[in-house]
Amino acid sequence: MKLVVLGAAGRMGRTLVKVIAETEGASLHAALAREGSASIGADAGIIAGIGASDVAISSDVDRALQGADGIVDFTAPAISLAFAEKAAERRLVHVIGTTGFQAEQDSAIASAAKAGATIVKSGNMSLGVNLLAVLVEQAAEALGPDTFDIEVLEMHHRHKVDAPSGTALLLGAAAAKGRGVALEDAAVKVRDGITGAREAGTIGFATLRGGSVVGEHSVILAGEGERINLSHAAGDRAIFARGAVKAALWAGGKPAGLYSMRDVLGLS
Amino acid sequence: MKLVVLGAAGRMGRTLVKVIAETEGASLHAALAREGSASIGADAGIIAGIGASDVAISSDVDRALQGADGIVDFTAPAISLAFAEKAAERRLVHVIGTTGFQAEQDSAIASAAKAGATIVKSGNMSLGVNLLAVLVEQAAEALGPDTFDIEVLEMHHRHKVDAPSGTALLLGAAAAKGRGVALEDAAVKVRDGITGAREAGTIGFATLRGGSVVGEHSVILAGEGERINLSHAAGDRAIFARGAVKAALWAGGKPAGLYSMRDVLGLS
Amino acid sequence: MKLVVLGAAGRMGRTLVKVIAETEGASLHAALAREGSASIGADAGIIAGIGASDVAISSDVDRALQGADGIVDFTAPAISLAFAEKAAERRLVHVIGTTGFQAEQDSAIASAAKAGATIVKSGNMSLGVNLLAVLVEQAAEALGPDTFDIEVLEMHHRHKVDAPSGTALLLGAAAAKGRGVALEDAAVKVRDGITGAREAGTIGFATLRGGSVVGEHSVILAGEGERINLSHAAGDRAIFARGAVKAALWAGGKPAGLYSMRDVLGLS
Amino acid sequence: MKLVVLGAAGRMGRTLVKVIAETEGASLHAALAREGSASIGADAGIIAGIGASDVAISSDVDRALQGADGIVDFTAPAISLAFAEKAAERRLVHVIGTTGFQAEQDSAIASAAKAGATIVKSGNMSLGVNLLAVLVEQAAEALGPDTFDIEVLEMHHRHKVDAPSGTALLLGAAAAKGRGVALEDAAVKVRDGITGAREAGTIGFATLRGGSVVGEHSVILAGEGERINLSHAAGDRAIFARGAVKAALWAGGKPAGLYSMRDVLGLS
Repeated sequence: MKLVVLGAAGRMGRTLVKVIAETEGASLHAALAREGSASIGADAGIIAGIGASDVAISSDVDRALQGADGIVDFTAPAISLAFAEKAAERRLVHVIGTTGFQAEQDSAIASAAKAGATIVKSGNMSLGVNLLAVLVEQAAEALGPDTFDIEVLEMHHRHKVDAPSGTALLLGAAAAKGRGVALEDAAVKVRDGITGAREAGTIGFATLRGGSVVGEHSVILAGEGERINLSHAAGDRAIFARGAVKAALWAGGKPAGLYSMRDVLGLS
Repeated sequence: MKLVVLGAAGRMGRTLVKVIAETEGASLHAALAREGSASIGADAGIIAGIGASDVAISSDVDRALQGADGIVDFTAPAISLAFAEKAAERRLVHVIGTTGFQAEQDSAIASAAKAGATIVKSGNMSLGVNLLAVLVEQAAEALGPDTFDIEVLEMHHRHKVDAPSGTALLLGAAAAKGRGVALEDAAVKVRDGITGAREAGTIGFATLRGGSVVGEHSVILAGEGERINLSHAAGDRAIFARGAVKAALWAGGKPAGLYSMRDVLGLS
Repeated sequence: MKLVVLGAAGRMGRTLVKVIAETEGASLHAALAREGSASIGADAGIIAGIGASDVAISSDVDRALQGADGIVDFTAPAISLAFAEKAAERRLVHVIGTTGFQAEQDSAIASAAKAGATIVKSGNMSLGVNLLAVLVEQAAEALGPDTFDIEVLEMHHRHKVDAPSGTALLLGAAAAKGRGVALEDAAVKVRDGITGAREAGTIGFATLRGGSVVGEHSVILAGEGERINLSHAAGDRAIFARGAVKAALWAGGKPAGLYSMRDVLGLS
Repeated sequence: MKLVVLGAAGRMGRTLVKVIAETEGASLHAALAREGSASIGADAGIIAGIGASDVAISSDVDRALQGADGIVDFTAPAISLAFAEKAAERRLVHVIGTTGFQAEQDSAIASAAKAGATIVKSGNMSLGVNLLAVLVEQAAEALGPDTFDIEVLEMHHRHKVDAPSGTALLLGAAAAKGRGVALEDAAVKVRDGITGAREAGTIGFATLRGGSVVGEHSVILAGEGERINLSHAAGDRAIFARGAVKAALWAGGKPAGLYSMRDVLGLS
């Protein structure tokens, strides 16, 4: 599986280059960075700290995609969208770990999948988080809103610029699905001052930021006299890269369409 | 459903008396205590802090069982065994929340269920813990022993005399089942001094004791760079009494046999 | 120490009646409830579930205060203010566990203390929380804002109507004091949407609500590669009542003035 | 400060080489590995993933120590002991992060400090853990054994071969000091089967192992109805290396003697 890494000079890009080198069946086909990046021309493997890879970081997209099997992409919504369209044209696999899409961007991604791209898209690429979402959905269904309140807590490093995290929303959506409601209707994201008592059936979100925390998420189901806490802690950004490369290998040969990590993991 | 409470003057017995009074469809038929207990003759409701119940605490077992539909029992293995035999003779429901049974005692309970008793027995009577066990089994199956290590942590109040708790063992057994192994073969209950590296596939137990903690359990699945934690906290002993009374109502009219809380909750 | 309990028919009032009965050196002098309360005339001990106390719940404030040594008060700001003025007139001890005061109400409380009341006021009456505040102040001082970020997390039951809790603010103020800043300047209470990166030196707050959780608070100091978490969990509302009665006994005979739980506990 | 790194080809050794390169005032003087190590002759910086350092990994101890100011050492007790003696002869700084010393080995280290070595030795080199120990000591003193039980919980990766961790014992010793008892007398390290009720004044230890967890420690003080939890999580082995290099810089110029991280951090 010949893979193109986007943002190859960034933190996640370098991790992807490293994980691809370690993964049997995957190889680095091209490494892209933004035009004007200081890393253009440098060896992607050396930038990633794993020794020479014979792939130079480039900004020439067309050349990079030529002969490639798939794209691995943790960038920004607008960039991911542009690449989804290219993936559709060229019938490529496109693994999208980018977060922060607007509803209309999500629709455009879905259109690209209909037009020929084999897209795997998830708010979180780790095995553990995707399993957690399955468990949360079941728990939310078994422990109903008349007796159990659902809260989603997350903590990330001080550099994160949005809240709640994409993964917190993914877990909240799993809880909402288990309850048979829409997350938009149930979500409570701000509590400050006189809030009144908690409304039954809502799903609360709370956000912590600090230090170098890679990512921690808890879904709490709190009832009268007892509480369940289902949580995930990421200690290392490489888990997302490993999941993304695993998704790319899984998607190779699958028909065009929009898939999730649950599909990859056989949990759906 | 006319229920007999065992150990009615003890902490759990008083909670049962209270919960039965609050539960539609259940009524207190008799309240038993050990011969010689200082509470014999006292009103069970007054002892439980809910006002007169017109049921005096007694040690006359035969009289108590006469006309009863079921027994609710959080006592000790030998006592539970004796009552299971009486339940078999009289075709009664017997809800057993007692823990600490030996293997041969478990067999004797199973025999009583075959001989006519409708027994619901669980190491933990709470809704949350039994749901947790179902989730743990799935997680243990999905995240295999080559990459994820399973640990069970529990904390209870300073008065608890055994370790690990029955609930910790119940959760460990759920994990072992998910992994397709026997808990006896996989369990590691002591770590002290030079232990060597952790052996893949084992299930570790750790025990905390202190203060008035009602009961907290966590099952941790720790992999390379990520960790899942599935936990339950009981804030209030009444959750076990509520589960037991719910089990008694469920069991009324069911054929003789040995049931678990998963059956009661429709999770099996 | 002859004590008057305010809100004697409410949840905290009944706990206070019970704790006073259990505490050597304290006795229940009077039990007040709002005019029109259904409990007026009932025995305060029976309402509290501890048997007859020979003190009837009343709404006659002047009669209740006559001959009293102190007032114990977990009510609402306006009520506490009115009683602080009465305590000043009569040179009484007034223990205030009420939260949610506005700045001008705090000033009025301080005036009452100058005018003759011996007031002990704290956002949280428990021993553990007040010790925690001392530790938080030290940690915040030792681990400076250039390397460590401070976050305050709290969880309370579904009935709580304000956020963050008074105790969360108390802990945040301790952290701010350790850092030599004002909490008003440093506090960040809402994170939703595009927040930008965390600003160094801020103190973040996050709020969870659900079930019957009595009260849990964590102060997190998150640095590069390491994190300290200082937390307190209340399992039982009685800890606040015990602290308040302990404060009343401590304050008996002290000169008029405004004291805190740190004074009571010798931690200041 | 010209530093010699021991075990320079190992995981902690490589981190030390990296941290020394990043730290102003510190330089890599020599990098030692065991005779026969495959890395002998390789450039220490390249092995550490930071590019050429012009220091080749060697097993020639005498040559390495010639002209050096200090030794940084996370190895094994016997090795640390041998180097402490060399440090004494040559009047060097010796920072010892090794754990697992026997009592007689501790004495020999103390003798080396008397004989001329400036030794900084700690069971844990991180800033956070050493602050935590100070807080634990205070909390253990303030919350006495008649009402609060102390428990120490730790979790480490699956490769760790001893239990409890050196840091857990360090925190237990801080608690014991706060209580005015000896840890050897108070420690309870095994709970399995019928343990009986918890004995007041004991300090319990519990150990979790799994995945790639760098190191997490909690000290719990559990009382009637409330609980304090003081914890530290290390996300990254580099915090120990940073602390060790900070200790080496601090110790430069200090008189011979045995120091701790509390001395380095000004917390003693």
